[in-house]
Amino acid sequence: METICEGDTVLFMTEKKKKYMVKIVRGKKYHASEGYVDLSELLGKRYGCKVKSNTGSTWVALKPTILDYVLHYPRITQIIYPKDLGYIILVGGVRPGSRVVEAGTGSGVLTTILASYVAPTGKVYSYDVEEEYLENARKNLDKLSLLQYVELKHGNVEKDVAEKEVDSFILDVPEPWKAIKSAYSALRDGGIFVSVSPTIEQVIETVETLRKEGFEDISTVEILSREMRVKKGMTRPVHIMHAHTCYITTARKILNEE
Amino acid sequence: METICEGDTVLFMTEKKKKYMVKIVRGKKYHASEGYVDLSELLGKRYGCKVKSNTGSTWVALKPTILDYVLHYPRITQIIYPKDLGYIILVGGVRPGSRVVEAGTGSGVLTTILASYVAPTGKVYSYDVEEEYLENARKNLDKLSLLQYVELKHGNVEKDVAEKEVDSFILDVPEPWKAIKSAYSALRDGGIFVSVSPTIEQVIETVETLRKEGFEDISTVEILSREMRVKKGMTRPVHIMHAHTCYITTARKILNEE
Amino acid sequence: METICEGDTVLFMTEKKKKYMVKIVRGKKYHASEGYVDLSELLGKRYGCKVKSNTGSTWVALKPTILDYVLHYPRITQIIYPKDLGYIILVGGVRPGSRVVEAGTGSGVLTTILASYVAPTGKVYSYDVEEEYLENARKNLDKLSLLQYVELKHGNVEKDVAEKEVDSFILDVPEPWKAIKSAYSALRDGGIFVSVSPTIEQVIETVETLRKEGFEDISTVEILSREMRVKKGMTRPVHIMHAHTCYITTARKILNEE
Amino acid sequence: METICEGDTVLFMTEKKKKYMVKIVRGKKYHASEGYVDLSELLGKRYGCKVKSNTGSTWVALKPTILDYVLHYPRITQIIYPKDLGYIILVGGVRPGSRVVEAGTGSGVLTTILASYVAPTGKVYSYDVEEEYLENARKNLDKLSLLQYVELKHGNVEKDVAEKEVDSFILDVPEPWKAIKSAYSALRDGGIFVSVSPTIEQVIETVETLRKEGFEDISTVEILSREMRVKKGMTRPVHIMHAHTCYITTARKILNEE
Repeated sequence: METICEGDTVLFMTEKKKKYMVKIVRGKKYHASEGYVDLSELLGKRYGCKVKSNTGSTWVALKPTILDYVLHYPRITQIIYPKDLGYIILVGGVRPGSRVVEAGTGSGVLTTILASYVAPTGKVYSYDVEEEYLENARKNLDKLSLLQYVELKHGNVEKDVAEKEVDSFILDVPEPWKAIKSAYSALRDGGIFVSVSPTIEQVIETVETLRKEGFEDISTVEILSREMRVKKGMTRPVHIMHAHTCYITTARKILNEE
Repeated sequence: METICEGDTVLFMTEKKKKYMVKIVRGKKYHASEGYVDLSELLGKRYGCKVKSNTGSTWVALKPTILDYVLHYPRITQIIYPKDLGYIILVGGVRPGSRVVEAGTGSGVLTTILASYVAPTGKVYSYDVEEEYLENARKNLDKLSLLQYVELKHGNVEKDVAEKEVDSFILDVPEPWKAIKSAYSALRDGGIFVSVSPTIEQVIETVETLRKEGFEDISTVEILSREMRVKKGMTRPVHIMHAHTCYITTARKILNEE
Repeated sequence: METICEGDTVLFMTEKKKKYMVKIVRGKKYHASEGYVDLSELLGKRYGCKVKSNTGSTWVALKPTILDYVLHYPRITQIIYPKDLGYIILVGGVRPGSRVVEAGTGSGVLTTILASYVAPTGKVYSYDVEEEYLENARKNLDKLSLLQYVELKHGNVEKDVAEKEVDSFILDVPEPWKAIKSAYSALRDGGIFVSVSPTIEQVIETVETLRKEGFEDISTVEILSREMRVKKGMTRPVHIMHAHTCYITTARKILNEE
Repeated sequence: METICEGDTVLFMTEKKKKYMVKIVRGKKYHASEGYVDLSELLGKRYGCKVKSNTGSTWVALKPTILDYVLHYPRITQIIYPKDLGYIILVGGVRPGSRVVEAGTGSGVLTTILASYVAPTGKVYSYDVEEEYLENARKNLDKLSLLQYVELKHGNVEKDVAEKEVDSFILDVPEPWKAIKSAYSALRDGGIFVSVSPTIEQVIETVETLRKEGFEDISTVEILSREMRVKKGMTRPVHIMHAHTCYITTARKILNEE
């Protein structure tokens, strides 16, 4: 059984279902809206144990998953949500061993998830024009021991991509249509193009360009996720949901007629 | 460059966007609503090439992805759809190296997708009480070279699970609440429970049982996917969509108070 | 108690929940997939009575509502669905006594519903460039005794509208933005503009024009309706739903700055 | 042209699209987050005019519709939203001249809307067990000159309904199934039952009871409304929407077999 050690990161879930990502430091207290917990108390305990805050609230100490980590990344750019990430991975054909070009690195959320799925034999080539984003992603990936699966590359995905025969080419950039020639050139036969955009005008421009540049099986979807409040006699969907995060466009490279 | 050989399976996409999964046999013709194609013509060509049917319809010959394969499996039971599969993989914490218990095997769609994501170092333990389902899944997994990542087990997931310390426990069975004690016993600390059910009564029973049996971070969602018809000047969502496939309930095992 | 007479129209709902709109003629049989019913049998019975078809299927004989009638109109153009009609009436400010300009008349579905809500003291001015649509609507409205609340006008809503100080101006035409000056001129202070369009490009053009032409409180929504299959122990949303019918844009006329 | 007089109520819409319902009193200032407006300034102006707040924000002075009024009612109970109100009116068969039983009166939102649609010749019989709710509704209806179309009745809708041969029977109560016998007895042949409930358990109990008590054409839907942010080059759905307000169940009274 794995136990909690000094320096580990724990995901607290409080009685009111609030979540906090906390590094365990001996002698330190962690304060939140439901009181504080003395972190020393956790040392040597198993993950999934319960502790009481000074105000009597019961907190569970969970071992964070990679998804927990990325959802707690500082949001230096707009992030991609779980409902969309799962679809991108699956429909984008990202698997253990895949070679994937991605841009922009941004907050590193998608980069991290991609890295965790191409491991242990694949590679993510992640481009961004902002060096500070790359630096931030490097630190996050390193903490999660995923840096070995990623090459962080300073460059413009529209013209600087050096990779060839990649399996997937995934864009989260403001003008994805400008990188479609670059995608065609980098992808292997049948390789999958994915683009994530918030606005419909971006989608229209991207899809029209894909049609011209030798892609087929072009599809654009919106994914909606609605949570249910489940309690016998009181079951109903929750009150509020995300109405929109992004449109996801996918396509496959085919051979151009000679 | 990989070329198409005798015995390979090709995914045809016709001009009208119909898809057919076809095994290439020299001298055979493949007939569909948009005419027929002589399969010999494809031998030696690259994936992504175009062929003309006898009626002049242009077909693209794609190399099937694993997702293409499972969506063309014979549907001996209700299948899980891509929008749900991606979410299950991601939120279920299924990654390269994961050890996952799954039941029931059914059509083998989820089994195959799980196998492709736990590879090359993880394992899926897939239970079903129907031997014919297991046999069918075995053949499908073998064809896709994924059988090595799966143990197909004839047994009842409510009482026959032998595995311990697994990372995820994924149910697609009519009475998931009856397998929750079994899930608790098989999962490692913090391991993730996932249940997929079409009806709300199943969800209520499952969630109420999870609360009693030492699970936390319980969440039930519905995933909706809506396709857009994108064409400059005529862009709109498509006419018809799936209104519902299943509710997905996830939870994490925590330690019970002594 | 009202009873069924020769010449009345009855809405049959069969055991399998199929619906048929049938005129009662003595001595005639009505044939459908669940057998036939002798219509003479219904004469003198109360609405809501049950009859058996020759194959033993039980049919209910309902008195059609206006909504039933319009949903059984021949669909000579795309129709507007109940989920959208209700919203248009309410948010469009259509009430007993309202004076409403509408275009195009089309199948007359919206015209009929508007007529039934402005009665007994209001009026609908319904424009279409196709005389045959107007003729068709005239017959339908007459049958439902609603013709007195409608003026069917042969003309182009972009330039031929003669009415002033109307309460609502409702468009279901391919280029709604071209009729916005006409709407401004016809509406009273604070009068409500409504436009129904299937594509997003139509919406963008319409909203941008509304902004320029002196409208405020501009809002565009999509209405989705999902049916539930309710049965103890088997409750779930149905499998299939309309993904999209139209976007509804509403706005209010305000005074232009002098 | 109607002009704004002392004592009128105006709906201000500010530059940032905030809405305020304000009674015009000479010499008074109205303060909001975007500055204040001197109300005397509005006297004699037309509805739809623009005024500047002291901070330079431009406000439009709209004439409130009935829908504006009800959406600004004090919410002494959960209210029904426009997307649902429109559907209830239309599918519930509420029209000029209809006689409608409704319970509970609650905040009076539905009562007011019903009154405005049954006018000028119909009547709403609105039941509540809380006298203070009835008193509150009376004041609101009076202000809008709709009280003549409503009988506010202190009583329990399960047993105190005196009306017969009503067209529609509309429930927004915690245990609608207990009022179904009462609905059957009050409705005319083919009359329409409507029930609005937030939880799925309420729906199941209601639908099962309707089946037993002689109702047919039973249907339960959820209505979702999603707003679009429309701006050339930046068009997309808004970020957040209501995930759920209520399920709406409708049914028609049919004759019970003797």
